[in-house]
Amino acid sequence: MTQASQIEITAFDWVPPMARGHVRDLRPRWACEEMGLPYQTRLISAMNRPQWYYAEQPWGQVPFLRDGEVTVFESGATLLHLAEKTGKLMPQSGQGRADVQSWLLAAFNSVEPWYLQLLMIVFAGDEEWARLRKPAMLEFMAQRLGRLADAMGDREWLAGEFSIADIAMATVLRDTSGPDMVPLDRWPNLAAYLDRALARPAFQRALDAQFADFKTDAEAGV
Amino acid sequence: MTQASQIEITAFDWVPPMARGHVRDLRPRWACEEMGLPYQTRLISAMNRPQWYYAEQPWGQVPFLRDGEVTVFESGATLLHLAEKTGKLMPQSGQGRADVQSWLLAAFNSVEPWYLQLLMIVFAGDEEWARLRKPAMLEFMAQRLGRLADAMGDREWLAGEFSIADIAMATVLRDTSGPDMVPLDRWPNLAAYLDRALARPAFQRALDAQFADFKTDAEAGV
Repeated sequence: MTQASQIEITAFDWVPPMARGHVRDLRPRWACEEMGLPYQTRLISAMNRPQWYYAEQPWGQVPFLRDGEVTVFESGATLLHLAEKTGKLMPQSGQGRADVQSWLLAAFNSVEPWYLQLLMIVFAGDEEWARLRKPAMLEFMAQRLGRLADAMGDREWLAGEFSIADIAMATVLRDTSGPDMVPLDRWPNLAAYLDRALARPAFQRALDAQFADFKTDAEAGV
Repeated sequence: MTQASQIEITAFDWVPPMARGHVRDLRPRWACEEMGLPYQTRLISAMNRPQWYYAEQPWGQVPFLRDGEVTVFESGATLLHLAEKTGKLMPQSGQGRADVQSWLLAAFNSVEPWYLQLLMIVFAGDEEWARLRKPAMLEFMAQRLGRLADAMGDREWLAGEFSIADIAMATVLRDTSGPDMVPLDRWPNLAAYLDRALARPAFQRALDAQFADFKTDAEAGV
């Protein structure tokens, strides 16, 4: 981008290969691409997180979004902000808006937390607690995905038209169906939904942009 | 309530004593009390969850909110809906609105999920995985609360005036500081914040209303 944009997304300048393409700034990047909103990035170190950054983002995580004078943290809040700013990807009122907000919160509070637990188990490798706990957690995750599949039925998107709720849920499902987790093949409608979401050109542009921002290992000094 | 209200909150008709006062319909009840919005409840069985309910609420959980013709699920989405409906507890625009949405999502996606993990460990009692995992999870939770305390500083509420973000965060902190979890005394500003929130008359009315809706054990047939 040659011209300064009003939207600035804070992202990491380097992450290990397994995390690339999965860092949460992907969500507002995807939303901006869908909305035709130009944005620029501000890159910080994930490995040596600057102390000043905690004053902007309480957990030191990304994304953090600046829109002119207004700042937003938490990827879910960045999605709400961008939808309200542009009037896109979330209806202005009525049942359509309620559906988008319900499914957005469902992704963040009722599906992603189970993925987080599974991720910590995967990270723990062969630690005893993780080995003991993994089967039950896989089953919890599968139960939740089964309920999601039932609720989804044969709809194209979660809430009418493609919305910020789909950006939230598809990024969760994409990670949940990763290696050592729960393959989506058991629920063909969910697998097809995820394929449909990830086939959107805006998703691919967001993904490419995240990758393009990472330094090489040599540049990052790792 | 003698007159039919436009707002109907679905709640459980009975839960075990340890869960009473902690079921998530407390959140929209509290918001309605703060906003001066009358509401009525529709009670369902938590023990024998009606199959039809999953068509309304994908996980079979409460709350589910009906506002005239519009329905909302996920407690976070009910808070957004009620704030947008009334114009209360969330500014209409600008940094104030961004702050409320950021902190609301922070409560639901960055604090409550850690509490959920801790709760599952407490529920697991002396299962081996839980015994092995508990110290690390208590430490994760404490780290997160420490960051929250730093971000909070000496503010009265998370985002300017009392808001739906405080309803979200206070209900999480109240549970996280429960028995076998992380006492808030380590962070006097968080402890004082929680006390301030729970001292609000609207919270007490919401709590009383949740208790008043539970059947006796005999009535519930347990």
